[in-house]
Amino acid sequence: MWNYEKKLQYPVNITKCNPQMAQVIMSQFGGPDGELAASMRYLSQRYAMPYREVAGVLTDIGTEELAHMEIVSAIIYQLTKDLSPEEIKKSGFDKYYVDHTTGLWPQAAGGIPFNACEFQSKGDPVTDLFEDLAAEQKARSTYDNILRLIKDPEICDPIKFLREREIVHFQRFGESLRMVQEKLDCKNFYAVNPAFDKLCACEMNK
Amino acid sequence: MWNYEKKLQYPVNITKCNPQMAQVIMSQFGGPDGELAASMRYLSQRYAMPYREVAGVLTDIGTEELAHMEIVSAIIYQLTKDLSPEEIKKSGFDKYYVDHTTGLWPQAAGGIPFNACEFQSKGDPVTDLFEDLAAEQKARSTYDNILRLIKDPEICDPIKFLREREIVHFQRFGESLRMVQEKLDCKNFYAVNPAFDKLCACEMNK
Amino acid sequence: MWNYEKKLQYPVNITKCNPQMAQVIMSQFGGPDGELAASMRYLSQRYAMPYREVAGVLTDIGTEELAHMEIVSAIIYQLTKDLSPEEIKKSGFDKYYVDHTTGLWPQAAGGIPFNACEFQSKGDPVTDLFEDLAAEQKARSTYDNILRLIKDPEICDPIKFLREREIVHFQRFGESLRMVQEKLDCKNFYAVNPAFDKLCACEMNK
Amino acid sequence: MWNYEKKLQYPVNITKCNPQMAQVIMSQFGGPDGELAASMRYLSQRYAMPYREVAGVLTDIGTEELAHMEIVSAIIYQLTKDLSPEEIKKSGFDKYYVDHTTGLWPQAAGGIPFNACEFQSKGDPVTDLFEDLAAEQKARSTYDNILRLIKDPEICDPIKFLREREIVHFQRFGESLRMVQEKLDCKNFYAVNPAFDKLCACEMNK
Amino acid sequence: MWNYEKKLQYPVNITKCNPQMAQVIMSQFGGPDGELAASMRYLSQRYAMPYREVAGVLTDIGTEELAHMEIVSAIIYQLTKDLSPEEIKKSGFDKYYVDHTTGLWPQAAGGIPFNACEFQSKGDPVTDLFEDLAAEQKARSTYDNILRLIKDPEICDPIKFLREREIVHFQRFGESLRMVQEKLDCKNFYAVNPAFDKLCACEMNK
Amino acid sequence: MWNYEKKLQYPVNITKCNPQMAQVIMSQFGGPDGELAASMRYLSQRYAMPYREVAGVLTDIGTEELAHMEIVSAIIYQLTKDLSPEEIKKSGFDKYYVDHTTGLWPQAAGGIPFNACEFQSKGDPVTDLFEDLAAEQKARSTYDNILRLIKDPEICDPIKFLREREIVHFQRFGESLRMVQEKLDCKNFYAVNPAFDKLCACEMNK
Repeated sequence: MWNYEKKLQYPVNITKCNPQMAQVIMSQFGGPDGELAASMRYLSQRYAMPYREVAGVLTDIGTEELAHMEIVSAIIYQLTKDLSPEEIKKSGFDKYYVDHTTGLWPQAAGGIPFNACEFQSKGDPVTDLFEDLAAEQKARSTYDNILRLIKDPEICDPIKFLREREIVHFQRFGESLRMVQEKLDCKNFYAVNPAFDKLCACEMNK
Repeated sequence: MWNYEKKLQYPVNITKCNPQMAQVIMSQFGGPDGELAASMRYLSQRYAMPYREVAGVLTDIGTEELAHMEIVSAIIYQLTKDLSPEEIKKSGFDKYYVDHTTGLWPQAAGGIPFNACEFQSKGDPVTDLFEDLAAEQKARSTYDNILRLIKDPEICDPIKFLREREIVHFQRFGESLRMVQEKLDCKNFYAVNPAFDKLCACEMNK
Repeated sequence: MWNYEKKLQYPVNITKCNPQMAQVIMSQFGGPDGELAASMRYLSQRYAMPYREVAGVLTDIGTEELAHMEIVSAIIYQLTKDLSPEEIKKSGFDKYYVDHTTGLWPQAAGGIPFNACEFQSKGDPVTDLFEDLAAEQKARSTYDNILRLIKDPEICDPIKFLREREIVHFQRFGESLRMVQEKLDCKNFYAVNPAFDKLCACEMNK
Repeated sequence: MWNYEKKLQYPVNITKCNPQMAQVIMSQFGGPDGELAASMRYLSQRYAMPYREVAGVLTDIGTEELAHMEIVSAIIYQLTKDLSPEEIKKSGFDKYYVDHTTGLWPQAAGGIPFNACEFQSKGDPVTDLFEDLAAEQKARSTYDNILRLIKDPEICDPIKFLREREIVHFQRFGESLRMVQEKLDCKNFYAVNPAFDKLCACEMNK
Repeated sequence: MWNYEKKLQYPVNITKCNPQMAQVIMSQFGGPDGELAASMRYLSQRYAMPYREVAGVLTDIGTEELAHMEIVSAIIYQLTKDLSPEEIKKSGFDKYYVDHTTGLWPQAAGGIPFNACEFQSKGDPVTDLFEDLAAEQKARSTYDNILRLIKDPEICDPIKFLREREIVHFQRFGESLRMVQEKLDCKNFYAVNPAFDKLCACEMNK
Repeated sequence: MWNYEKKLQYPVNITKCNPQMAQVIMSQFGGPDGELAASMRYLSQRYAMPYREVAGVLTDIGTEELAHMEIVSAIIYQLTKDLSPEEIKKSGFDKYYVDHTTGLWPQAAGGIPFNACEFQSKGDPVTDLFEDLAAEQKARSTYDNILRLIKDPEICDPIKFLREREIVHFQRFGESLRMVQEKLDCKNFYAVNPAFDKLCACEMNK
C-alpha cells in the first residue's frame, strides 16, 4: 500500500500560462511513453518477477513514477489554470477544454486516450526488463523533444529533473537484467522462463 | 508523492488456483469500473477541484484505490501463479496467457484494455463528484456480481472488504458534494463553475 | 420502434461558417458526454430495469437524446457546409476534412472516435441511475464550456435549449432514483439487485 | 426527431435461456457490422448527401435500423434474463456478466466495444453509397453465420426477418447509387464530389 | 513471401517542408482509408477466398498497397525531415512531434491510431469484394480531399498517381465480383457462402 | 516496393482442425507482439534512421516479418478452415466466427483489434533500437507460451522456426545498436538525436 506525502518530489512553480505547451507536455502524463504508463507497467510486472530484489526495483521505480506523474500534472495544471476563453480558442486548447475544462485527463498530446496497449507485462523476467529498458529510452526521448520545443526555465527545470531520473532508471533496469541473467546462469537464457517454468526454484527469492 | 509500505491494506491468502475466476476478478484491476480506473479518476480530478478539503478527499481516496488495486492484483496472481499448461487450456485462460504468461496486465474480464475513456475528469466540482458517486456504485455492483459467482471464502473475504470500502467512499463523496453545494450557496448551483469561472474566489481554499 | 418526424425538436438556422467551433461542438455529437452516448446509454439500460415506470423514463429520454443528436448534427453541418479549401486549411479543420469531407462522423472534439467505453450499462437499477445523473451533469458541463467559448446567438440559442433539457433530465433521473429506492423499501438498498436477484418480484412492474 | 411506438417491428418470444448464443448474437447489437453501427452510419451520412431523395432513403433506413437494434436487444435480453450464477459460469457468460450483470451494452461477440471506426461517413455520395452496400452485405453475412450456429426456431425466426431486411436495404442503396450516377450524368463520375464541390448545383435537391 | 526491391513504385522528390500538409497526408498512411489498412484488408481476406484467381487479385493488390504505403511514407518524411523547432510549434505539428520526433507512425490526420476496426475481413467472397469496392472509393475520396487542399505539384504528382491506382483497383475488384457471381451461377447468390459451406466444391480453385 | 513470391518462407502442412489453438496463435498474427506489429514497427522506423546500414536492417527484418505474418496466417487458416458449426460452438470459436466466418482478421487471442498503440516509432535511433530489442523478446516469449500449450509437431515445427528467427533478429538489432553508439562516439550518447539534431552529419549515411 502507499502513503501520500503532501509534497512534490521536485518543485513546480510556473507563473505564465502556455496552453499550447501544456498540451504537448500532456504526453508525459497520459501519452504512450508517459509517467502513468511507466508506473502501471512496473507495478503490474512485479507480480510475476521471481527474484525478490528485482521485484523490489519494480516497486520502487513504479512508485517513483507516480510521483513523476504528479509533477507533470502540476506542470500542466499551472500552465492552463488561469486561461481566458479567448486564450483557449486562440491556442487550439479548445478541443481539450470542451470535454475537460481545465481538469486533467490522461491522454497523449495528439488526443489518444491513455490505454494499456501502450505498455506490456509479459510474465517473463528477461523480456519484461527489455520492455522496461525500452520504456525508459522512450520517455527520455519524449523529454528531449519537449526540451527542444520549450526554453522557458520555469518549465524546463522540472522537465530536466524528470529526464535525468529516466536515465537513472534505465541504469537500474540494466543492472536488474544482468542479475537475472546471472541467476539463470546459462548462455542461452531463453531456454526457461523462471516466472512460469518453476525449473530453477533454488535461484528464486534469494 | 507516495511512499510504499510493504504490506497489503487487507491480507490475501489464496491456496487454490482458479483461472476462470481470476479472469472475472480482473475487471476490478483493469476493467471499466475497476480500482485502477478509480484511482486515476480521483487523482486526476483533484487539480481542478477548487475546495482544498474536497481535493484532500480525492487524494485520500485515490491513494486508497491504489492499495485496492494492489489487493486485487494479489488475488489474481495467487489464483493463477501455479497453473499447469493443461489447466490453462481447460479453463480458457490460454487467450490471456499467450500474451502475458501469468503476469498481470490491466484489462476487463471480457478482454478490453484499460483505457481512459472509462472515466471522466470534467473540471467542474459538482459534475466530477456525481461522476465519483456513480463510479463507486459501479464498483459496488461489480463486487456484487463477483460475490454472486464465487463462494470460496479465501476469495470472498478480501472482496467483501473492498466492497465495503466502496460504500464508505460513496458516502464521503456524498458529503463532499453537499459541501460544494453549500459553498456555492445558491439554488441553481449550475450557474457557475468555480473551477473555471473564478467568480467565487472568496469561497475557495477555505 | 421509432417513427421519424421530419422536423427538428428545436430550430437551427446558422448563416455563417465557423469550422473551429464546429469541431468543438462535435463533442456533443460523438464525444464522451455527447448526445449519441446519452441516447445509447439510456436505450441500452432499459432492458434490465425491473420497474416499468423507470424503464419508460429511459425510453423517453433515450428517444429525446436522438432528437438532440439531430440538432447538434444540424449545427455542425451548417457551420461547415460552405467552406472553401482555404478556410479549411486556415481553421485546422483539414485534419477532419481529409477523412470525412464535410460529412458527419461521431467523434470528440479532440479526435477520439465515439466508443462504448464512454458509457456504462451495469444491470443494477440504483447504479444505472447514478450513472445517468452523472451523465446529465457531464453533458451540462460540456454545454457550459461551449457557451463560454461561443457568443454568436445563432449558435448559442439551440445550445442553451439543449443545456436546459439536460437539467430537466437530471431531475427526472433523480425522481426515478427515489422511486427505485422506495420500492426497495430498505435502508441498505445495496443488499439486493432487483434486476438480477429476483427477490422482490412483488415490487416489480407496478 | 423520432417518436417512439411501443412495439417491436417484429415479435420476439424466446422461452429458453441460451447465454452462449446471446453473446454471439450480441455482434448484431454492438459489433462491427451490427444494427447500431448501421443506424449511426446512415443517420450520419445524410447531412452531406446532396440529393434529397437519397438523403430520405438514408433517414428511412437509419430509422429502421434503430428498430432492428431494438429487436436484437430484445433477443439478447430474453436469452439471458433468467440465468442462475451456475449457468453464467458454465457458459462463459461470466466475463460479460461481471461488468454488466444482465444489462445490455453494445459490444461485439469477441468483446470489442462498439466504436465509430467500424463505419465511415465520407462526405461523398458515390463513396458513401458503396460503404452502405458493403455494410448491408456484411450484416447479411453475420446473420448467415448466426443461422448456421442456431437452429432454435424461436431465435431463428426474428433473425431471418432481420436478414431479409438487409437484402432489401442493399437493393435500395443500389437504386440510390444509380440515381446519383445518373444525376452526375458523366462517364467518369469521380471527377466531382457534389457534396463538396458545388459544381452541379442544378442537379441537387430535385 | 515478399522480396524487397530498393525503389519506389513512383518517384517522390519533395524539396520544401510542409508539416501541416504532412499531417493531413498521414491519413493515407495510417488513417481509416489509408494504404496500410488497404494492404492488410486484402492480404487478410485472401485466405478464405475460395477462387484461386480472385485470391491472386487480393495478393497482387495487397502487395501493391504496401508499395503505396511506402510512397506515402516517403512523402510524409520528406515534408517534415528538416523542420526546425520553431516551424514545428508554429504549424501545430508539435503534438505529433513530441511522441514521434520526425519518425513515422501510422495514425489518421486527426490522431486516431491505425486499428483493425477500420477494415473488415468477413470470410464471404461476395461480402469481402463489396468491402473492397467501398474501400477503394473511400481511398479515392481521401485523395480527392488532399488534392483540393494541396496545389504544390511536387506533392500532387505522386498523389495523383496513387489516386489513379485506386480506380484501377476498383475496376479489378468489380471484375472479381462478377467472376464470383458467375461461379455461384444462381440468381440469389446469397444462398451459400462458398468460403464456408463447401457446397460448390466443383466451382472452386478453377 | 515489394515483389510477391508465391511460396511460404517455411512450409505449413496442418491436417487437423484445432480452433482453440488457432485463436491462441492468432496473437502472433494481430496481437500486441505479433508479426504484423513487428513488420509495421520496423518498416515505419526506417525513415528517421540516419544510418543507411541500420535502415537496411530495418527494411530487411520488416520484410521478413511480412513473410512470418504469412506463415502464421497459413497456420491459423489451416487450423480452422474445415470446421463444422458444432465444432465452432463447442470450441468457443463462435465469438470470432460470427464476425469473420473463417476469414483472417488481425486481433489478439483475447480479442483486442490490432492497433498502432502496440508499437512505437520514436524517431531516435538509440530509442528505436531498444524498442526493437524489447519487441523481439516479447515475440520470443509469446512463441514460448504457444509451445508450452501445443505439442502437435505439425504446429510446433513452423512455430519453432519463427521463434528461432526472433532470436536472430534480436542479435541483429543488438549489433545495430552497437554500430549506432559507435558512430555517436561519445560516452553519453543521449546528448544528441542524430535523426533530428543534424549535428553529426559527417557520421551519417556511411
